Amino acid sequence: MTEPGTVYMEELDAFTYRERVAQGAPILIPVGSIEQHGPHMPMNVDVLLSRAMAGAVAGQTASLVAAPIVYGYKSQQRSGGGNHLTGTTSMDAATVISIAKRLVLELARHGVRKVAFVNGHYENYQFLYEGVDLAVRELHLEGVRDIKVMLLSYWDFVDDATIAELYPNGFPGWDLEHGGVLETSLMLLLHPDRVDMSRVADIPPAVLPSYDVLPAVPEVTPSSGCLSSGADATAEKGQILLDRAAAGMVAAVRHEFGM
Amino acid sequence: MTEPGTVYMEELDAFTYRERVAQGAPILIPVGSIEQHGPHMPMNVDVLLSRAMAGAVAGQTASLVAAPIVYGYKSQQRSGGGNHLTGTTSMDAATVISIAKRLVLELARHGVRKVAFVNGHYENYQFLYEGVDLAVRELHLEGVRDIKVMLLSYWDFVDDATIAELYPNGFPGWDLEHGGVLETSLMLLLHPDRVDMSRVADIPPAVLPSYDVLPAVPEVTPSSGCLSSGADATAEKGQILLDRAAAGMVAAVRHEFGM
Amino acid sequence: MTEPGTVYMEELDAFTYRERVAQGAPILIPVGSIEQHGPHMPMNVDVLLSRAMAGAVAGQTASLVAAPIVYGYKSQQRSGGGNHLTGTTSMDAATVISIAKRLVLELARHGVRKVAFVNGHYENYQFLYEGVDLAVRELHLEGVRDIKVMLLSYWDFVDDATIAELYPNGFPGWDLEHGGVLETSLMLLLHPDRVDMSRVADIPPAVLPSYDVLPAVPEVTPSSGCLSSGADATAEKGQILLDRAAAGMVAAVRHEFGM
Amino acid sequence: MTEPGTVYMEELDAFTYRERVAQGAPILIPVGSIEQHGPHMPMNVDVLLSRAMAGAVAGQTASLVAAPIVYGYKSQQRSGGGNHLTGTTSMDAATVISIAKRLVLELARHGVRKVAFVNGHYENYQFLYEGVDLAVRELHLEGVRDIKVMLLSYWDFVDDATIAELYPNGFPGWDLEHGGVLETSLMLLLHPDRVDMSRVADIPPAVLPSYDVLPAVPEVTPSSGCLSSGADATAEKGQILLDRAAAGMVAAVRHEFGM
Amino acid sequence: MTEPGTVYMEELDAFTYRERVAQGAPILIPVGSIEQHGPHMPMNVDVLLSRAMAGAVAGQTASLVAAPIVYGYKSQQRSGGGNHLTGTTSMDAATVISIAKRLVLELARHGVRKVAFVNGHYENYQFLYEGVDLAVRELHLEGVRDIKVMLLSYWDFVDDATIAELYPNGFPGWDLEHGGVLETSLMLLLHPDRVDMSRVADIPPAVLPSYDVLPAVPEVTPSSGCLSSGADATAEKGQILLDRAAAGMVAAVRHEFGM
Amino acid sequence: MTEPGTVYMEELDAFTYRERVAQGAPILIPVGSIEQHGPHMPMNVDVLLSRAMAGAVAGQTASLVAAPIVYGYKSQQRSGGGNHLTGTTSMDAATVISIAKRLVLELARHGVRKVAFVNGHYENYQFLYEGVDLAVRELHLEGVRDIKVMLLSYWDFVDDATIAELYPNGFPGWDLEHGGVLETSLMLLLHPDRVDMSRVADIPPAVLPSYDVLPAVPEVTPSSGCLSSGADATAEKGQILLDRAAAGMVAAVRHEFGM
Repeated sequence: MTEPGTVYMEELDAFTYRERVAQGAPILIPVGSIEQHGPHMPMNVDVLLSRAMAGAVAGQTASLVAAPIVYGYKSQQRSGGGNHLTGTTSMDAATVISIAKRLVLELARHGVRKVAFVNGHYENYQFLYEGVDLAVRELHLEGVRDIKVMLLSYWDFVDDATIAELYPNGFPGWDLEHGGVLETSLMLLLHPDRVDMSRVADIPPAVLPSYDVLPAVPEVTPSSGCLSSGADATAEKGQILLDRAAAGMVAAVRHEFGM
Repeated sequence: MTEPGTVYMEELDAFTYRERVAQGAPILIPVGSIEQHGPHMPMNVDVLLSRAMAGAVAGQTASLVAAPIVYGYKSQQRSGGGNHLTGTTSMDAATVISIAKRLVLELARHGVRKVAFVNGHYENYQFLYEGVDLAVRELHLEGVRDIKVMLLSYWDFVDDATIAELYPNGFPGWDLEHGGVLETSLMLLLHPDRVDMSRVADIPPAVLPSYDVLPAVPEVTPSSGCLSSGADATAEKGQILLDRAAAGMVAAVRHEFGM
Repeated sequence: MTEPGTVYMEELDAFTYRERVAQGAPILIPVGSIEQHGPHMPMNVDVLLSRAMAGAVAGQTASLVAAPIVYGYKSQQRSGGGNHLTGTTSMDAATVISIAKRLVLELARHGVRKVAFVNGHYENYQFLYEGVDLAVRELHLEGVRDIKVMLLSYWDFVDDATIAELYPNGFPGWDLEHGGVLETSLMLLLHPDRVDMSRVADIPPAVLPSYDVLPAVPEVTPSSGCLSSGADATAEKGQILLDRAAAGMVAAVRHEFGM
Repeated sequence: MTEPGTVYMEELDAFTYRERVAQGAPILIPVGSIEQHGPHMPMNVDVLLSRAMAGAVAGQTASLVAAPIVYGYKSQQRSGGGNHLTGTTSMDAATVISIAKRLVLELARHGVRKVAFVNGHYENYQFLYEGVDLAVRELHLEGVRDIKVMLLSYWDFVDDATIAELYPNGFPGWDLEHGGVLETSLMLLLHPDRVDMSRVADIPPAVLPSYDVLPAVPEVTPSSGCLSSGADATAEKGQILLDRAAAGMVAAVRHEFGM
Repeated sequence: MTEPGTVYMEELDAFTYRERVAQGAPILIPVGSIEQHGPHMPMNVDVLLSRAMAGAVAGQTASLVAAPIVYGYKSQQRSGGGNHLTGTTSMDAATVISIAKRLVLELARHGVRKVAFVNGHYENYQFLYEGVDLAVRELHLEGVRDIKVMLLSYWDFVDDATIAELYPNGFPGWDLEHGGVLETSLMLLLHPDRVDMSRVADIPPAVLPSYDVLPAVPEVTPSSGCLSSGADATAEKGQILLDRAAAGMVAAVRHEFGM
Repeated sequence: MTEPGTVYMEELDAFTYRERVAQGAPILIPVGSIEQHGPHMPMNVDVLLSRAMAGAVAGQTASLVAAPIVYGYKSQQRSGGGNHLTGTTSMDAATVISIAKRLVLELARHGVRKVAFVNGHYENYQFLYEGVDLAVRELHLEGVRDIKVMLLSYWDFVDDATIAELYPNGFPGWDLEHGGVLETSLMLLLHPDRVDMSRVADIPPAVLPSYDVLPAVPEVTPSSGCLSSGADATAEKGQILLDRAAAGMVAAVRHEFGM
């Protein structure tokens, strides 16, 4: 049985899903991670936010949202604190690539021709790209040439005006937004019961080198695991971020999928 | 922030998780699939049920439940209708093996030494086994020799007495239980709003060959995608199944992990 | 030169083989293992029996028997005693999958369109399945759409009546048949010189848990390495088993391959 | 039960095998192929000959012979006629590498520290080398540093004097010996019933380019599939070849394994 | 024989190299690509520039420069024009990862403990990261715990002041610098004979979407293959870029390697 | 910009390259290694010589020379001294196979249909062969059936008469030519400034076993790392070798590519 009105593919029964695919519905795939997000937020922030973003886009584009890719690529020190931290639970490159490839192939087998990954964890991007590229090439061998796959990271749709508005004291950069104002505001909006603002580590933005070192150098990461402070986060900011990012993605999806 | 009282690891913040790991908490990993389950149930039945089973066990064993493996191995015609069906969305063997391997390695990096996979999709089992075996071997190279990993399929803990009680007209076998009384009863108990009993295909158990053929022979699978009827399912039966399976798994977990 | 009357592909010269393929002969591929089988039988039992079973089927279906897959997947504690035992010599999943895939692709290159794996080692099955599925998909890309591959485990063709007849004191289940009455009886029939009944460990059927644990827990496996006793084995029982299993497989092969 | 006096590991029961390993027995692994060998010989020549060569060496060095690697690397046009020929049934590089690697790892797990591959199919060599190198490296990680693995191709132990004696009209080179005097003579000695000398294609040695072309150019390979004539083969020559090659390998094995 | 004074490892003889390694010399590995760089520059720009950058750093840090990784990851439309363009010749993710991993393992085998990748092709970065991470983990298993590997992209060491100085009319962003002022200026400085300024496509910076689409949409890429104009490039700007980037990298290398 | 008259693809701009491909130019791919070559020569000998050989062939066949594969397969003790030696920096089999495969696929994407690998490192050959075979198979799936790929090792084109002329005191065999007369003479001709004849180890040809042992037995390799002496090398011999090998390869390329 399908939950009435749901856009979430996994909550559809297969017969209803088949109708939606026959109507040409795009499928949006949220991609998250299980990663420490400081003392004030749970480890599934990237799953929750990518899924919510995809849901917001789906509602406006007659799309469905696939079950999320829950586990993502290794957290890197300059964007997520590093994969040496306990709690962060990651896949390696080959696995993320395979998952993305398989999902595109399976959806194409269903007859889907419009797919978009909605990424919520910075480190995933290049590996999703490779998986999609391999899938598209394999579909080409099969004779499927009308597939089109988009790769989106939701924060890339927050425009400069919004940034200026939300970060009046200066924007630390998306890399440092791990556990910061963006993610905390969205969580306050969407899952306020899962945020404890009293536990926010109100630190200045981390000063990180312009390169990586392996093995990770633990002292580079702030002890909270966050790279900037979420203290200025509010649900109102979350609403603005959700609205702007979703609007940008909706426009992009409509443009590329000719809707 | 951690949802109070939750056993779900993904809902914990990393600091709380670290305390639980330091206390020696076992981690249970639910393993599902996105697979057609007939016209009366959604495609994430195996995710929901394996997660609920793991949750029931966790509550009685001071364990945590990891975020589920959402996408599983290809549906096979004799146990899930076959992977040619639209809606069913599966990983290949290499990917399932890698996911299982990586999860064990990551949890071991956290300091976890007691891990159990709680499987809810028949076809996953051997590939999880391989992933665990590879991880255990690699941990051995690292000098980690006190890791212990269990592999459970929840229906293997429903005993013969319960089967006789719940299937007075004869038990079709676990293989044919895809979309049948077991899964439908558990869904009626746990997620009644996601089951539409009016759409159950009330068919006799499928008569399947004692071998597989590839490519799949579509006419072997009933048109509903279910291998037996869920018409006799009730929430009461679901409660009995949940209680008995959980009790069996709790005993096994306690025994193996010395609790 | 081809041994007159042989059904074994490896004993044919290539020119004779080409004639047989041109006539549409199915190819049966025996799959065994090198695995301890107790003190009374050699380590190649699964190779010998799968090859003999395939030979019996070939004779009645105008098929050929390919050279066997000698080394199989890791022995598991609940069906073969476990892969920690000295003597047992196994491949990992990726290797078994590759071997099965390559064989299907090579036979298809020859022009063969009817292939059946005749499995003699429980643990192999799912990995053979994956290899076949990958090969069939790749052949599909090549435009070969008339390939048909069967996957058989010979014991699945022993019917309930036969079981009741051969195990008057109760049937321990195929899992526990490792080194037990089935295999020992077939060996007494086919290779009596390689069985030493005086060395049979006459133990009650092993009581095994309904789950796996890794690394293996050695004390779970009886010291003989057998999971039930072969003491009641006789060549007569072997003949019955061979006849019934072969008859079942012959019927299945004829049915699927339209003979 | 173990066939009395056998050197073939697969014919031993596990208990007897364990005694032999405890005594420090080297294990010799024959490596063959399923490959067309002209109209006068069967397709398993490389399996039969590598196994016989290993058996001859084992008898003089207190070694055991493992079950053979039956399927080898792709036949190449300059040494085996090419892999486009029907009947030839080959593995790809990754599979041969994995098989060799796994066998070394499994034997090392048993406690074996002296392993020798006895190769009977030219094309296998480099892939066996890689598999062994990977296994030795992995064993090194495990702390196993006293493993020693030899890689032998049996024809490399036929010395120049023997060549001059057996090929009075000139030696075509080992590459061109595919299906020629060497292999035919050994088959006449060891399996005379599987050679039909009346079907030998009595051709001059093939004139092959000093490079490879892919895809294979079929007209480069003589229509018999043999690269030189086996017409001068005799069982007597086979005996000389067996004796000389075995003597060379025995000396090498004793030297390297300190016997 | 070693070219006197060279910092290029490949031009050293092995005996001289061993002395340098014994002295603790870091090894810098340039990573390029073979990629179209517009009508005015050759396809090996990324190889030449990463090698020159590494050479400049080596001279000031007593390091050696390894032979370059010549072929890099697939060109992406938003940073290199896309991998559909003829001339661009790329590896896939698995290959780039393996090359990076193997190089670290081989250098570590030599005794090197300080390694830095100097990347000159944007798309390589994440795959180099994964290769290094896998190598470091494997070395850890080997007991090598004092290895330290840096990952640098040379443009990340050009500071904001330099950007303001060199791009008085506004900076298009590093992504769009493909074939633009940065690369052209450096080529004019280092290889003026390989730049034809008369062929520069003097276009405005490309306006690219904030997401990727696969398969590539050719019309998104300017017909020159460059993403911004190199018309303002001069050798003087090249000198400034080389000096600033090298100075930044020298400082980083000294800091991390404790020199 | 393209260096006037160059045959080196990497020095062409993409627009010029496209013209050459449109004219049907074959692409020659040099394959080298980074490998110790004694005290008198640098570690990139195999790169330099394969590139020079390819360049000589290209000039006479209207071909282009791709950027070289710089890092090759592991050095083996019987042909390159062994991969345990410091300085030698090698890829494993899977990586070499992937690189060769990808290059063929990328060139085919460009429209190239005539490709030749010009190998300068003995150990590479079989792995290049596999990579090419896999690529050709994949192109076949794509519908590209007119691709033709040659695999050449340049020394295979030095004929017996030349050998007799250049090695009046007897030819040690190509295997032992590592760092010997052939390579040293070619280097004296092509890069005299990179050879220091005063450092040649004037040793008799190494006496190597007719088999391999792993792990490597260091004392089997002469301390210079060369397997025979380069003392008799001269630039004149280098010229003869270059001329004869190039002439042979030119003839082969013209023959196979119908020029």
